[in-house]
Amino acid sequence: MKIFIVGLGLIGASYAEGLKEKGHRVYGYDQDKTTMAKAKVQNIIEKDTSINDIETADLVIIALYPEATIAFLKAHQHRFNRSQTLSDVCGIKTWLLTEIERFLPAQLNYTSHHPMAGKETPGFDAKDKTLFKDANFLIVKTAKTHKRDLERLEHIANDLNFGQISLLTPQKHDALIAYTSQLTHVMASSLILSSKDDDAIKATGNSFRDLTRIAKIHPPLWSELFLNNKTPLLQAISQFKQALSEIESLLERDDEAGLKQFLKNAKKRRESYD
Amino acid sequence: MKIFIVGLGLIGASYAEGLKEKGHRVYGYDQDKTTMAKAKVQNIIEKDTSINDIETADLVIIALYPEATIAFLKAHQHRFNRSQTLSDVCGIKTWLLTEIERFLPAQLNYTSHHPMAGKETPGFDAKDKTLFKDANFLIVKTAKTHKRDLERLEHIANDLNFGQISLLTPQKHDALIAYTSQLTHVMASSLILSSKDDDAIKATGNSFRDLTRIAKIHPPLWSELFLNNKTPLLQAISQFKQALSEIESLLERDDEAGLKQFLKNAKKRRESYD
Repeated sequence: MKIFIVGLGLIGASYAEGLKEKGHRVYGYDQDKTTMAKAKVQNIIEKDTSINDIETADLVIIALYPEATIAFLKAHQHRFNRSQTLSDVCGIKTWLLTEIERFLPAQLNYTSHHPMAGKETPGFDAKDKTLFKDANFLIVKTAKTHKRDLERLEHIANDLNFGQISLLTPQKHDALIAYTSQLTHVMASSLILSSKDDDAIKATGNSFRDLTRIAKIHPPLWSELFLNNKTPLLQAISQFKQALSEIESLLERDDEAGLKQFLKNAKKRRESYD
Repeated sequence: MKIFIVGLGLIGASYAEGLKEKGHRVYGYDQDKTTMAKAKVQNIIEKDTSINDIETADLVIIALYPEATIAFLKAHQHRFNRSQTLSDVCGIKTWLLTEIERFLPAQLNYTSHHPMAGKETPGFDAKDKTLFKDANFLIVKTAKTHKRDLERLEHIANDLNFGQISLLTPQKHDALIAYTSQLTHVMASSLILSSKDDDAIKATGNSFRDLTRIAKIHPPLWSELFLNNKTPLLQAISQFKQALSEIESLLERDDEAGLKQFLKNAKKRRESYD
């Protein structure tokens, strides 16, 4: 496949490296000249790549932040044609697809997807083609999705060694992500800021470090993600607070049997995720 | 040193294995006969060990759950003498030491400690002498603590490859632990139970799995720990809820600058824990 990747940050560069290795012709673009030079030298994109290659690619993946994804598509929409599959890797979909729908010519094929993998370090140098091993791969299916688009996305998901591939509506995607990804980041950041005691470092164990590692996220990206998925996220926070209040009230009432049952239910449900 | 370990579960057996390897004479006791047999065959305690060895040990470590620790000390208090250092590995201290004070003869030397390491799997077979590498080691210093007791505990902490050793009062220990350990377990269990959507498994990433792994804790132990440290834990939950409400209100107000600042502060503070 001829694949064009826009944005050679952590995700874009990891995609490029993994897909080039599997024999695809990978072209790319990054606004940072040093990144472009490195990508060519390291042979993860074709040496003669130019922005014009976007017009002949089978699959175009925009690997930018949500607002930048929209801006890029708007600026380059005249370059696309209906034989191509257009996609992005953004972490939020309802808002994104509504925005894109406003301007993208109706005959183009747009199918968003979301690779459920990442790390705290952003940028080209953090790239890692093994990042996606066994990770969940979410495809957002809409009226603009055709069989060929699904096949192309499934093809790269397999080549990048993703695990389960799921098809979701934008709304379902955003509700699930609010719970499994955004809420966990909100929790980690809140936990870190909830104590001002500098002695806490003396008493940390693995659980604290594991749970708060994601507080090292990139603030500009995540504030964009949170604000553009505000309703599902507030809903997820509210449901979490309810569960927290339940355990709080068991403690206040010294309800040992109830507390044990709560922890047992949690343990059982967590085991179903393994 | 002659060391006697009561309870050869995850912590007791890991201690025994690590300390035996460093040349200590390690004796032990477990109420489970199969565990005792395994411990002897695997040579992590002396083959001729008997409960009477507790009377001639320099250091006695009770590695049982909090309530069982108290019951054991009460039943065996006549066996101890003032040349020994008595200790335990419980995760809560104020309540524990108050209970022990009620009956333990005043001339005995009791210095509690807390190894900040563990895993979800309990029991002898889960033992791992590398579990403590670079982990925090908390010594709870009281009027019953003498120089020799500190030296003995620091000695084993070094032999087990612990990292930082800190001396804390029981109250300070419990406040820190409520934040760094108990609250994280409360959060993980609450998060798991806060969604009933079985599709969530399709959308989990590493952050969700890391953050909820500790929901697989042993309910009987943790309900004991939570209930006997109720006040500091409720305080930690309340502070966490305040931080959570702060981020909730930033979202509701669409305060992008405020949200970015919140995440930036969290990131900075988390980095100080590395």
